[in-house]
Amino acid sequence: MIGVDFARADPAEVSRLVYGLVIPRPIAWISSISRDGTGNIAPHSFFNAVSCHPPIVMFASTHRAEDSGRPSKDTLNNVLATQEFVVNLVSRDLVDAMMATARDLPAQDDEFEVAGLRKEACLRVGAPRIAQSRAALECRLIKAERMGDATVVYGDVVYAHLDPSIMRDGAIAPDLVDPVARLGGSLYATLGEVFSRRRE
Amino acid sequence: MIGVDFARADPAEVSRLVYGLVIPRPIAWISSISRDGTGNIAPHSFFNAVSCHPPIVMFASTHRAEDSGRPSKDTLNNVLATQEFVVNLVSRDLVDAMMATARDLPAQDDEFEVAGLRKEACLRVGAPRIAQSRAALECRLIKAERMGDATVVYGDVVYAHLDPSIMRDGAIAPDLVDPVARLGGSLYATLGEVFSRRRE
Repeated sequence: MIGVDFARADPAEVSRLVYGLVIPRPIAWISSISRDGTGNIAPHSFFNAVSCHPPIVMFASTHRAEDSGRPSKDTLNNVLATQEFVVNLVSRDLVDAMMATARDLPAQDDEFEVAGLRKEACLRVGAPRIAQSRAALECRLIKAERMGDATVVYGDVVYAHLDPSIMRDGAIAPDLVDPVARLGGSLYATLGEVFSRRRE
Repeated sequence: MIGVDFARADPAEVSRLVYGLVIPRPIAWISSISRDGTGNIAPHSFFNAVSCHPPIVMFASTHRAEDSGRPSKDTLNNVLATQEFVVNLVSRDLVDAMMATARDLPAQDDEFEVAGLRKEACLRVGAPRIAQSRAALECRLIKAERMGDATVVYGDVVYAHLDPSIMRDGAIAPDLVDPVARLGGSLYATLGEVFSRRRE
């Protein structure tokens, strides 16, 4: 085995190992609005659920250098200002649109317009969801806390939107969801073989 | 779109939606030891990285009903007692062994023995890693906090072990890692198409 002591490793190598080994990561394509109503969308792959009852999801927003002029990202600024956000699902057909929202635009630019995505009103939060996404989770901020070079955001999932096209026999079918996941570097992946295993 | 108000939804439906929509989830196959040295292994899919500098990972351990007699799981009890844990990688060839560690055994049973896995000593933590896993991250507890029906655990990654068989041209190759991910219900998935996209 190759051993890497993280206390002595080069920062770029540490990033490559973290992004390359914690895979595949689910993608939260997060829509939010600023206080003045500008829409923002950005993909986040340090994302997961943490609780079902109540339903709670988390995502981490990585900070830039403090002297960069804009140390925290628009998504985080909006979530802290409005206390809400929407997690939209990225299926394979939406990868190009997702990439168009991964750029670092000025805060006043609306990613919905830049990426050619339509806003659809949510029912429990003020931020819009992405009309083209086949599922969306409306979330209310529980708390945000600094952890390393990121802020971890927790949200209560209060409402879900599901397109019937991702259901088969009344259940969510992962092959119909057709999610895109994040790997290391510039790599992404679709689902491969889907199989069932039950606990003995 | 189908709308589901989580404040009124049946708890089983909420679970199905959370597990079925936050996909694919990476699996942390966590090895730990109790204060008396009994080895424990259990898979956790509410898992991700949150920071690279310093490298920090998180996982959530779901609690059972308070009146179940054993409300928290052995992994969480061990991590709180010893302040450390190891994240081992689950590749496709290890799915059966992983399932053997997903059962709810008495705390005194050693999952390494039950699942036929070999212990390999770690360098920075007392818990052993799983010898058969092709990558392992040694972690020291940063903090644990209750969030909904789970406890979220954060750990500093202090040391990584990598089998050269997951590398190609000096980089981690996801097809060689061949990770298994968690979906909803009893479903799991391998990686499908791997593709590269760069930000414009």
